[in-house]
Amino acid sequence: MEHHPPRSLTLLILSSDLEKGLAACNLALAALAGERRVTLFFSFWGLNFLKKPGAKGAGSLLARMLGLLNRDHAESQRPGRFNAMGVGRLAMVRLMGRHHVLPVHQGLAMAHQMGAHIVACSNTLQLMGLNRESLIDEVDEIAGALTFLDAADEGTVVTLS
Amino acid sequence: MEHHPPRSLTLLILSSDLEKGLAACNLALAALAGERRVTLFFSFWGLNFLKKPGAKGAGSLLARMLGLLNRDHAESQRPGRFNAMGVGRLAMVRLMGRHHVLPVHQGLAMAHQMGAHIVACSNTLQLMGLNRESLIDEVDEIAGALTFLDAADEGTVVTLS
Amino acid sequence: MEHHPPRSLTLLILSSDLEKGLAACNLALAALAGERRVTLFFSFWGLNFLKKPGAKGAGSLLARMLGLLNRDHAESQRPGRFNAMGVGRLAMVRLMGRHHVLPVHQGLAMAHQMGAHIVACSNTLQLMGLNRESLIDEVDEIAGALTFLDAADEGTVVTLS
Repeated sequence: MEHHPPRSLTLLILSSDLEKGLAACNLALAALAGERRVTLFFSFWGLNFLKKPGAKGAGSLLARMLGLLNRDHAESQRPGRFNAMGVGRLAMVRLMGRHHVLPVHQGLAMAHQMGAHIVACSNTLQLMGLNRESLIDEVDEIAGALTFLDAADEGTVVTLS
Repeated sequence: MEHHPPRSLTLLILSSDLEKGLAACNLALAALAGERRVTLFFSFWGLNFLKKPGAKGAGSLLARMLGLLNRDHAESQRPGRFNAMGVGRLAMVRLMGRHHVLPVHQGLAMAHQMGAHIVACSNTLQLMGLNRESLIDEVDEIAGALTFLDAADEGTVVTLS
Repeated sequence: MEHHPPRSLTLLILSSDLEKGLAACNLALAALAGERRVTLFFSFWGLNFLKKPGAKGAGSLLARMLGLLNRDHAESQRPGRFNAMGVGRLAMVRLMGRHHVLPVHQGLAMAHQMGAHIVACSNTLQLMGLNRESLIDEVDEIAGALTFLDAADEGTVVTLS
């Protein structure tokens, strides 16, 4: 009898765009429902989805400067296109509510509860002057590229950049 | 004698940028020429490549509002960068013509004819107030994330986001 | 005794954003350190990472026009977000220096020296009026989509688009 290891989905999230976050949650939840192992690896602007509201880049002036430009966090939501000074965003968020699509931070929390492994990229976290305290509770691990590659080896990889 | 299943390529297209559409067609056609099975899964703004010219988000005011912002369709083509109020776009489209690169809607039609399976994401379609009638004839299926994951399991996945 | 082929990482780089270049180098170097085979395939705006400083699109007026819009090259570095007229860029480049993150062109050179295979997409190169002379020495091959697909078949694929 052959043994098949469980299939897996590894997501690499490099963007903080609302639609990328929604795609990540949608894929993660579907994969979990289909009994796949799921790893979500957040790096660069994708780390915004893991930032607590109010968390700021600490340390150097430069990190604080970058933090001021890059203010999005786990509960803020802006599409990467058609934001139109908030009109597109408003339309999307309302439409999500009407169609029972969870906001990204709730989708992530549910995926985490269903067993998804949530990883924050150690390198870019440091670059942005963030640390474990800046991040939401659902983060399971702070790790580097090799952790991503090891998870990726075992199945499907989707990059949201 | 060992049996190898046919190799496959699954494309996830989340963007409506001209260059992403061209990359999708280029990869799909090369994969089909190399006897791979090909699935193109369009979601979010990527659905624009499947929208009939003139198709509008129907239903709620919100969906119609989003439809007004998001007017691209299967035959409109704008690069995501260096559009420069149409100059970059014009240069790219003309260069494509000169080098015999098919426009995206023709590339998709050819891929479809060669056996590519074209899927529109059911969730985002609904969110945008679109339905089967809004989409070009080449769409084979309207389906959710699990359909993408099942196709992805079998081979190479490229995400154009 | 079972024979496992070496694991591999194939990167498809379609963007010239600084953060995508950094992610590519970071993943490539980690994969090489972990004894994976690494292929970096650059297409569309991603070709900018391979362009010699000063290289211009030659040939037709259109290619030269597109070249004027698309001036980035191997040693210029602009983030795709939060550039803020150069403030975000300055902050990122300085932070990279402080945290000993190599600039992209140095990261690519190191990856190349460690055995990464660097490929420029023949189709888009031609479209942009570029040729081998326009590209940095580290480019190993100019090739089409099938070369990418063959490399991709063997392992993990990450798309930076």
